[in-house]
Amino acid sequence: MKYRLYYWPEIQGRGEFIRLALEYAGADYVDVLRHAADHSFPEKPAPFALPYLVAGKQVIAQTANILLYLGPRLRLAPRGEAGRLWAHQLQLTIADWLVEAHDTHHPIGSGLYYEEQRREAKRRSADFLAARLPKYLDYFEGVLGRSGGSWLLGKSLSYPDLSLFQMLAGLRYAFPKAMAGLEKRHPRTISLHGRIAMHPRLAGYFSSERRIPFNQMGIFRHYPELDSLRNNSKKT
Amino acid sequence: MKYRLYYWPEIQGRGEFIRLALEYAGADYVDVLRHAADHSFPEKPAPFALPYLVAGKQVIAQTANILLYLGPRLRLAPRGEAGRLWAHQLQLTIADWLVEAHDTHHPIGSGLYYEEQRREAKRRSADFLAARLPKYLDYFEGVLGRSGGSWLLGKSLSYPDLSLFQMLAGLRYAFPKAMAGLEKRHPRTISLHGRIAMHPRLAGYFSSERRIPFNQMGIFRHYPELDSLRNNSKKT
Repeated sequence: MKYRLYYWPEIQGRGEFIRLALEYAGADYVDVLRHAADHSFPEKPAPFALPYLVAGKQVIAQTANILLYLGPRLRLAPRGEAGRLWAHQLQLTIADWLVEAHDTHHPIGSGLYYEEQRREAKRRSADFLAARLPKYLDYFEGVLGRSGGSWLLGKSLSYPDLSLFQMLAGLRYAFPKAMAGLEKRHPRTISLHGRIAMHPRLAGYFSSERRIPFNQMGIFRHYPELDSLRNNSKKT
Repeated sequence: MKYRLYYWPEIQGRGEFIRLALEYAGADYVDVLRHAADHSFPEKPAPFALPYLVAGKQVIAQTANILLYLGPRLRLAPRGEAGRLWAHQLQLTIADWLVEAHDTHHPIGSGLYYEEQRREAKRRSADFLAARLPKYLDYFEGVLGRSGGSWLLGKSLSYPDLSLFQMLAGLRYAFPKAMAGLEKRHPRTISLHGRIAMHPRLAGYFSSERRIPFNQMGIFRHYPELDSLRNNSKKT
């Protein structure tokens, strides 16, 4: 099966969670809006938002839904239903976390510029770094501690591991100071990040032009003024 | 199978999307924190957040994941994989919409009071009502128009129909003025809401004490000052 992935060509964004699964598995795919000569969209009505994946006659949207579909096919999810639901549950929790990471710089509206919501972004970021980021990190550290292996589901890597790696990578880019203070309490998560970064096939991907660098258009953005717990998170 | 649903007892919230599926299907379930004598949580580690469903030995969290599990069992989803993924894709889009509806009154932090983020809530609500709410309503109206039937998936009701009903009900509670202005352009969605409201088994549920009324603690809240397109959505 040759997969066709449709996603914005300038950013990692949500598409990166799909790219990592495809790259890790060595799947046959094309990142259509970046690398295909034929950019035409499928005839079916467009989904609400990118990314979407075309697999034969199927058009599948929503990042977590695409991974739900790909998981067993790429051997990145358990075969049994209970295991697949557990992997998906972790992925949906990562999806929630990702929205919160995005909204640190866009708390008012995704169609407005950052500069139009900078004041609100400072407050939201302070709340995120103080209240939400530690809660998510603690949760995944706990899952790793109880899994019976070095991956979220135990002894085998599954697609949520790749997504957790991506969260760590993005958060380090966006909030280097805050993350430096939090990482020592999350050794299992940091170890997972390092193991995935060094995986031979992914290391090749990361050093290729296929991996788009983090930048100030994506979901994870580095604004130094947001990387601080000291912004006022009380009422203005 | 007797299902045990764990969710906050004072609000509809995310739990309501599960309750509606269970009630519509006439499933055997207990809303544990409201109606069970035994409130004990399962021994397994707690999920990141409520709701979760206990089904035999399984503990399943994340609203859309619970519906993914329940769908075929309650005959509220197609049997084939493509149909199940399509239903789930719609549910995940509703989940995104729900987060945005919540964040209209809590744009800075879910742990802060509304009164601590009222100024930001006005801006976020104005953006939501002008840019986001019409986009979601248009999308689902389009899906209904192309489905080949009077439900999202065609001729049979599936769980995303119940969730779309709940979105409409909640948005009408939270934003009566804005919704009044938008509804005439979305006749299929409004019709779906009416048909589900009058379904005999659900009508019984809605008039029972099992249906928690909308209130100012839930995801959908009615603050009259937020129900206006005229709040400044430009930079402060």
